[in-house]
Amino acid sequence: MKAIILAENDFEDLELFYPFYRLREEGIQVFVASSQKELRGKRGYTIKSDMDYHEVNPEDFDILIIPGGKSPERVRLKEEALRIVRHFFEKNKLVAIICHGVQVLISAGVVKNRKIACWYGVKDDLIAAGGEFVDGVAVDGNLVSARHPGDLAEWMKKFIELMHSL
Amino acid sequence: MKAIILAENDFEDLELFYPFYRLREEGIQVFVASSQKELRGKRGYTIKSDMDYHEVNPEDFDILIIPGGKSPERVRLKEEALRIVRHFFEKNKLVAIICHGVQVLISAGVVKNRKIACWYGVKDDLIAAGGEFVDGVAVDGNLVSARHPGDLAEWMKKFIELMHSL
Repeated sequence: MKAIILAENDFEDLELFYPFYRLREEGIQVFVASSQKELRGKRGYTIKSDMDYHEVNPEDFDILIIPGGKSPERVRLKEEALRIVRHFFEKNKLVAIICHGVQVLISAGVVKNRKIACWYGVKDDLIAAGGEFVDGVAVDGNLVSARHPGDLAEWMKKFIELMHSL
Repeated sequence: MKAIILAENDFEDLELFYPFYRLREEGIQVFVASSQKELRGKRGYTIKSDMDYHEVNPEDFDILIIPGGKSPERVRLKEEALRIVRHFFEKNKLVAIICHGVQVLISAGVVKNRKIACWYGVKDDLIAAGGEFVDGVAVDGNLVSARHPGDLAEWMKKFIELMHSL
């Protein structure tokens, strides 16, 4: 299986690196798509990207990950990134988002009537876009979402359980 | 099961938080012992400690974790921390260390004739103390060790496999 992470500078470091390593534990190949060749997290960790968004053929990937931080406000401005997101929702593939990651889903127009967890500071945007805010880790179909780094264990536990149940 | 992390300020953030959340995924209770009430990692993440070293009854714990960074140079100076480490080795309990974590094991006098992975910058100290350096993730009995954050996935994968095999 292959996973793709969508991220830009000032991603929340743990929210990118926890699923990055966690999925590799499961034998999944994890790739990073970004407009940057090398990205820097809010806390200063860096990671090289594997490709720009327009180079992503979403058919090649099974899992989409969107970490939080300031990164989602930048990812959501890239139409080619939103194209990837819409593919995952149209095909009902596995998606894991956390914190501000919901901002990318709002811009892609895929949150309506979905139960989603996100950072409190953007929950009103989720609700205004037709989504339902969950104050915990939410599993809605193949979308698993969480609020903040304190949810990392439960977020990945539920995501990997779902993945293995398919 | 219960795990105890030994750490001081300037721990390597991912090396503490990755096992912290990863073991919680497995349903393990994870505690932090430190001389500080609140610790700050090299990258600025903070975590509250649960107890000081002298308050730890090592009989109560099944797993010992020692993350790297500058933290181990501080932990190794605390005789009460070394007492905990020696208990785990005497009782052959599960131990996971990474990066500079080996410095604590050297001071506890438990590395002789053990195959151990660690950060390259301190491998000569490991060898001088009678240990054997492994350039990868090492499993030697119930001790699982790794070199740096790039090993996080393989380190925890092997540790958790070992844990479930006991």
